[in-house]
Amino acid sequence: MNYRLVALVFGEISLIMGALMCVPMFMALGYGESHTLAAYGIAIAICVVIGGIGLALRPPKDKRDFRPTSGFAMCGVMWIVISLIGALPYCISGYIPNYIDALFETISGFTTTGASILAEVEIMPKSLLFWRSLTQWLGGMGVLVFAIAILPSNDKMSTALARAETPGPQFGKLVSKLRFTSRILYAIYIVMTLLLVVILCICKMPVFDSFCHAFSTASTGGFSVKNASIGAYNSVSIEVVITIFMILFSINFNVYFMIIIGHFIKAIRNEELICMFIIFFVALTAVTIDLCVRHTYDSVGEALRYSSFNIASVMSTTGFGTADFTGWSTLSQVILVGVMCIGGMAGSTAGGMKVSRLMIVTKSSFLSLKKNLSPRSVYTLKIDGKPLSENTISSVQTFFLLYVIIIVVSTLLISIETHSMSGNMFETNLTAVISCFNNIGPGLGAVGPAGNFGGYSLFAKLVLCCDMLLGRLEILPILLMVAPRSWKRV
Amino acid sequence: MNYRLVALVFGEISLIMGALMCVPMFMALGYGESHTLAAYGIAIAICVVIGGIGLALRPPKDKRDFRPTSGFAMCGVMWIVISLIGALPYCISGYIPNYIDALFETISGFTTTGASILAEVEIMPKSLLFWRSLTQWLGGMGVLVFAIAILPSNDKMSTALARAETPGPQFGKLVSKLRFTSRILYAIYIVMTLLLVVILCICKMPVFDSFCHAFSTASTGGFSVKNASIGAYNSVSIEVVITIFMILFSINFNVYFMIIIGHFIKAIRNEELICMFIIFFVALTAVTIDLCVRHTYDSVGEALRYSSFNIASVMSTTGFGTADFTGWSTLSQVILVGVMCIGGMAGSTAGGMKVSRLMIVTKSSFLSLKKNLSPRSVYTLKIDGKPLSENTISSVQTFFLLYVIIIVVSTLLISIETHSMSGNMFETNLTAVISCFNNIGPGLGAVGPAGNFGGYSLFAKLVLCCDMLLGRLEILPILLMVAPRSWKRV
Repeated sequence: MNYRLVALVFGEISLIMGALMCVPMFMALGYGESHTLAAYGIAIAICVVIGGIGLALRPPKDKRDFRPTSGFAMCGVMWIVISLIGALPYCISGYIPNYIDALFETISGFTTTGASILAEVEIMPKSLLFWRSLTQWLGGMGVLVFAIAILPSNDKMSTALARAETPGPQFGKLVSKLRFTSRILYAIYIVMTLLLVVILCICKMPVFDSFCHAFSTASTGGFSVKNASIGAYNSVSIEVVITIFMILFSINFNVYFMIIIGHFIKAIRNEELICMFIIFFVALTAVTIDLCVRHTYDSVGEALRYSSFNIASVMSTTGFGTADFTGWSTLSQVILVGVMCIGGMAGSTAGGMKVSRLMIVTKSSFLSLKKNLSPRSVYTLKIDGKPLSENTISSVQTFFLLYVIIIVVSTLLISIETHSMSGNMFETNLTAVISCFNNIGPGLGAVGPAGNFGGYSLFAKLVLCCDMLLGRLEILPILLMVAPRSWKRV
Repeated sequence: MNYRLVALVFGEISLIMGALMCVPMFMALGYGESHTLAAYGIAIAICVVIGGIGLALRPPKDKRDFRPTSGFAMCGVMWIVISLIGALPYCISGYIPNYIDALFETISGFTTTGASILAEVEIMPKSLLFWRSLTQWLGGMGVLVFAIAILPSNDKMSTALARAETPGPQFGKLVSKLRFTSRILYAIYIVMTLLLVVILCICKMPVFDSFCHAFSTASTGGFSVKNASIGAYNSVSIEVVITIFMILFSINFNVYFMIIIGHFIKAIRNEELICMFIIFFVALTAVTIDLCVRHTYDSVGEALRYSSFNIASVMSTTGFGTADFTGWSTLSQVILVGVMCIGGMAGSTAGGMKVSRLMIVTKSSFLSLKKNLSPRSVYTLKIDGKPLSENTISSVQTFFLLYVIIIVVSTLLISIETHSMSGNMFETNLTAVISCFNNIGPGLGAVGPAGNFGGYSLFAKLVLCCDMLLGRLEILPILLMVAPRSWKRV
């Protein structure tokens, strides 16, 4: 590992973070929240100092060699660094006095999880709430993709970092140049976010709230500025708009790119897209019928309203709430947990296991069964008509195994300490891990839409922080980060 | 598929079942339970009629061709047939009036699960309790292996059936001839069971109880003749004996075979064996410390007594109880559920995922990570120093995927109906499925050691029956049974 190159990237990222913190600082000025100004000032000063040190240590231009595998490890470190820095405003301003709590909230933001330790968000200053939503918006598209889009650095390293942040076959294939690709993606992201802001304003949501919720929706994050989340507005139009946009943001951005360049039919014939909609509508039908049969709500319309919003919310891994689904039947809750684990499409801002992985895992299992029936036949696994390589299939299977192992081990770890939470802790702990690891936000039991993660011990919060990072970076960068081999000198 | 050959095997199996039912009938005579005599008589008559029809339809000697893949499908059907027949005594005698309930109890027996729908077992006649334990003992070693051991049938078909019943690389490798192998295995099984009976009698357990509990222990089944299971005797010596034997019966029988032929060192150097003991002692230490720290029991000795028995019970997938672990801390409960899923060694009577599969799954995941670090290196996965083929690894990974998918889908299915059970149904339903699928017996919540499965609807019971069969036959035979290709005429 080229440590001086690491220092350079460190420095650059710190300066970007400092620059970004100017936004809430100016908002604090505008809203007259003068008591928070010092907090932003100190945080920005820290960023500038770290940035300066990093730049001072930078290697000469001809010594910027970089191994691709180091990119993964560095990506993991970078995410931790931005989280450590991003937590400063909460902590210094005193609104989240414990630094671990602030870190949990920041990681939950950057990873677009949306899990919160705050029981009351409405007492927070507006500038801090804006910062909270902004972290999600930045995290949604990948903080490093953002850095690549605006920074002049060497292309080899950029490719390595971007690969690490958004694994999968999609990235970097839109157009030949990586930086150009990331700019196209960000353009789509920005345009759709602004569109959502405008529509929310038309639906009579206050402008400030519209921006914050648009940020949380675009990133499928789920932080809200209201205690009751989107349910606070009690407006059908707002709920419909956000439901639609949550689904739109769980679609692979390549689909939009295809539509923009005119390949509409090819775009919507995407197998993963069709599969995601099938899963969504099956879950929607099942839960709506379930809610109607058990008379959870007064009318079919009500049932449909709440089921569609909440299924879209958990499937897109956003985590907004309009209803406390911990009161729904066991069947509906199990469906919600299942949909949580699946998540959105690869290449979108959504988290979870991703629909494409589920498809590969299911198809490969069926193929294996078929092989048992007629051992001499040859089968190939195809997605969108194209055969997948053995390598891809095996790496998806490995991902799935690690996915299950991490959920089990994390549940064990957070069960170690007794928490000051009520209810069934088996359910709460398991769904807290599933929710954090899949970057959703709420779970069941004490961490349901009406609850929060504040009752967990500091140790449990740190475990959940790791889960959020592991889930967001899709496991590999974090695991490689702790492997000593990644840090060997070349 | 050769239907007349199927009829022959059908007939043979029915006759064997009829013969086996004579045992409880004679017991009923001996214990003076005359009101149950008619039930056994009718059941045996049905067996004889089915057996007669099957034998009448048998194909001529030269038309007994058999495709190996059909063996899997047929094995699935056979298990269902013996369960349908085995349920007759419960149902006709009126002690379990509903046939689906009786079927659940029988499948739970043959699959060595030990889940029961009975709240009160002590009111049952002794002959019926003996039949209940006998189904477990027969199921433990594989009903078809039993049939192969005593029946004169063609060797090609025997191999196919035996493979289907106990998948994995172990079976049929001890000695060259399959029937001889199955007789050696049964000899070890019988000797160890009798040894346990004698020791239990020495520990002052009544002779009848000793036989029943020895049958349930040897098969890692878990049916008891007491409502409070082994806890009813409140005897440390009995608990220690049964703990040791539960572990002994989760060890691959090949290990005993090796010891018998004198290869002691080679036998205990088995990697899976060592791994199982490590898992056992880690879980034991963690739970004992947890119980001590939270003062669940009065002394360290008590904590050790209950934790060792109950961990051995769930890890060996037996399911005997001495303590209601639903009252333990969340951590201990999560550890128990984890250990439940792992199960014993392949080639033993224990259920679960099997330690060897966990080893392969974990090792292959780590190898995949290593490959990411240095893509050009070549790694091979080894167990006991021998490299595994790509095929084995991929089939184990497929097994694991199906394992997870089946648990999720079954939990969904049994959550459909509202049940007359109290407590958290998310926890109850999930652990009920895990418990049945891994052939353990008790779960958490309402199906904990103090509860039973009687509260579930008939539909849910049928789903759990499928899970028990899927778990016992390790998925493949049941899935191939419903595949139309398996039933094509050659």
